[in-house]
Amino acid sequence: MNTLILKAPYLVFLGDANDLLMAKVAKGIAHWRPEKCVAQLKLPGAKADLGLPDLSIQQAADAGAKTFVIGLAPIGGTLPAEWIGLLTEAMEAGLDIASGLHMRLCDIPELVAAAERTGQSLFDVRIPKGEMVCGTGLPRKGKRLLSVGTDCCVGKMFTTLAIHKEMERRGLNVSFRATGQTGILIEGNGVPVDAVVSDFIAGMVEALSPDNTTDHWDIIEGQGSLFHPAYAGVSLGLLHGAQADVLIVCHEAGRDQMDSMDGYLVPDLETVIATNLAMGALTNPSISLGGIALNTMNLSEADALREMARLEVQFGVPVVDPVRTGVSSIVNKLETL
Amino acid sequence: MNTLILKAPYLVFLGDANDLLMAKVAKGIAHWRPEKCVAQLKLPGAKADLGLPDLSIQQAADAGAKTFVIGLAPIGGTLPAEWIGLLTEAMEAGLDIASGLHMRLCDIPELVAAAERTGQSLFDVRIPKGEMVCGTGLPRKGKRLLSVGTDCCVGKMFTTLAIHKEMERRGLNVSFRATGQTGILIEGNGVPVDAVVSDFIAGMVEALSPDNTTDHWDIIEGQGSLFHPAYAGVSLGLLHGAQADVLIVCHEAGRDQMDSMDGYLVPDLETVIATNLAMGALTNPSISLGGIALNTMNLSEADALREMARLEVQFGVPVVDPVRTGVSSIVNKLETL
Repeated sequence: MNTLILKAPYLVFLGDANDLLMAKVAKGIAHWRPEKCVAQLKLPGAKADLGLPDLSIQQAADAGAKTFVIGLAPIGGTLPAEWIGLLTEAMEAGLDIASGLHMRLCDIPELVAAAERTGQSLFDVRIPKGEMVCGTGLPRKGKRLLSVGTDCCVGKMFTTLAIHKEMERRGLNVSFRATGQTGILIEGNGVPVDAVVSDFIAGMVEALSPDNTTDHWDIIEGQGSLFHPAYAGVSLGLLHGAQADVLIVCHEAGRDQMDSMDGYLVPDLETVIATNLAMGALTNPSISLGGIALNTMNLSEADALREMARLEVQFGVPVVDPVRTGVSSIVNKLETL
Repeated sequence: MNTLILKAPYLVFLGDANDLLMAKVAKGIAHWRPEKCVAQLKLPGAKADLGLPDLSIQQAADAGAKTFVIGLAPIGGTLPAEWIGLLTEAMEAGLDIASGLHMRLCDIPELVAAAERTGQSLFDVRIPKGEMVCGTGLPRKGKRLLSVGTDCCVGKMFTTLAIHKEMERRGLNVSFRATGQTGILIEGNGVPVDAVVSDFIAGMVEALSPDNTTDHWDIIEGQGSLFHPAYAGVSLGLLHGAQADVLIVCHEAGRDQMDSMDGYLVPDLETVIATNLAMGALTNPSISLGGIALNTMNLSEADALREMARLEVQFGVPVVDPVRTGVSSIVNKLETL
């Protein structure tokens, strides 16, 4: 398979993080995949806590840990020199290392040498793995859902993880398909689509969500937005490769200005829905809108519920805030498809 | 500048090609940039001919050649072992080597060693050069034209090269901006957008066609099609990064089935034009259709002229076949903008 695959369970490394904002990846793994987390490891003085047992590297290895996951992005994105001894110790104890940092593990000679010596693997989840393939556009069996957004950072990963979890809870046949660094570290496999050479975006998403049984759902994490001036190409390749049957459109209520993009306004939901459906129909003519995930963190409870009710009337699909309301109403609809 | 730049003039290598179909790159360079070609070099028995002087490597070097350009794609895309001695000889005579082959020059140890020894450069034009940058979407001065297509291989490169040549002939302030391997080898610089990591497509096209004087035109070579199930992401990133003022839509008359894409029909011109204008408006709200380039190679002269006249009425813009009619009517329109 052309995807990264990490071995579970994990020893989650929190470094010197003082809170879980600094350790977003660790927080995501512990929240979404608690069954994959055997322990946490912090540097002396760090205050962040996942509620996992604090074990040393050797204790974690004895408890069955297979991968040491770097769960935070240190300031500057580089790997502090003082971590190298720790990562080496983890490999010597029989653990692989996984990282989503910009600075690559495989560019650090001491780590490469330790990996060779110990036979352990270094996983840089920003580096796509395996043979790169071009899209075919050929139909495949099984059902696929993709989250798309009005902008970056509106909750596309969270929404798909929540839908996947609810579908698993109901005993449905479902897989989460990660397309970004954090999603890959949470799920333990996936394709970092924004790091794939542009010729292969659609093809690698096809490979990530292959032909499956007719009752199976792939819940595919979206990236960017068709209306993002820097990243729309990634979003379109992902939309075409996913051949989604169902789109969930993600939006942050009250956000007018696009994230880090001077002069670009967040497009309206109507345009975003119509454009995604029109473009997605190229590779799956029966694509439809399955729901809207509204991030209402900046609204009061009353305003949030009022806005969600309004959008339900306007678009005729379930509207949820995955954090505030959960995603049951969307999954109810998926169960009818 | 974040682009590849080859030194002219060139010694164009034809290998063992028996005709110019096998040496399409060489043919393109000799046709569009004759002033950059000092000589051709063939292997014994090769019958392809560019009409350039046949010189040995040393003679070409003495005549001022700076780059040995591999002008053909050998069957299988790999570099025949017997060429290595020749490429080494060229470097020893003071020439750089440029190649658009899938097999990279920089992966061939003998060539890397010869390059280090001689101080010459190996240019794999499929490998993007320089720092990769993300798109900003910020407006920039100068005017930009982009060719877009209903499919791959409909004449996007040819059309932009023809428009560039006609604008140069008229003394206009114009640059050709290459985005594919052949275009880069013809122009001597550019960005191979389909080889750029997907996060950077739009940004690298912004870098390729930077802020310029208000009377300057960038004529940007398009890639793929927004309706291509494998490559649309590349096309959208290119469209957004180009911030095109003017689109030229390229189409092959009579082609119904998309190139190498089972089950995909070529979309109709109306849809292609409307979609490109709508998506392109994100980064340049004043984008407009400047003309249609119709490849009529499969039509009789009478049918071709009739079809072009019909489309002119339908879309209200100049319709040309760059081969059959030239592109003057499009350039006339550009001069009014």
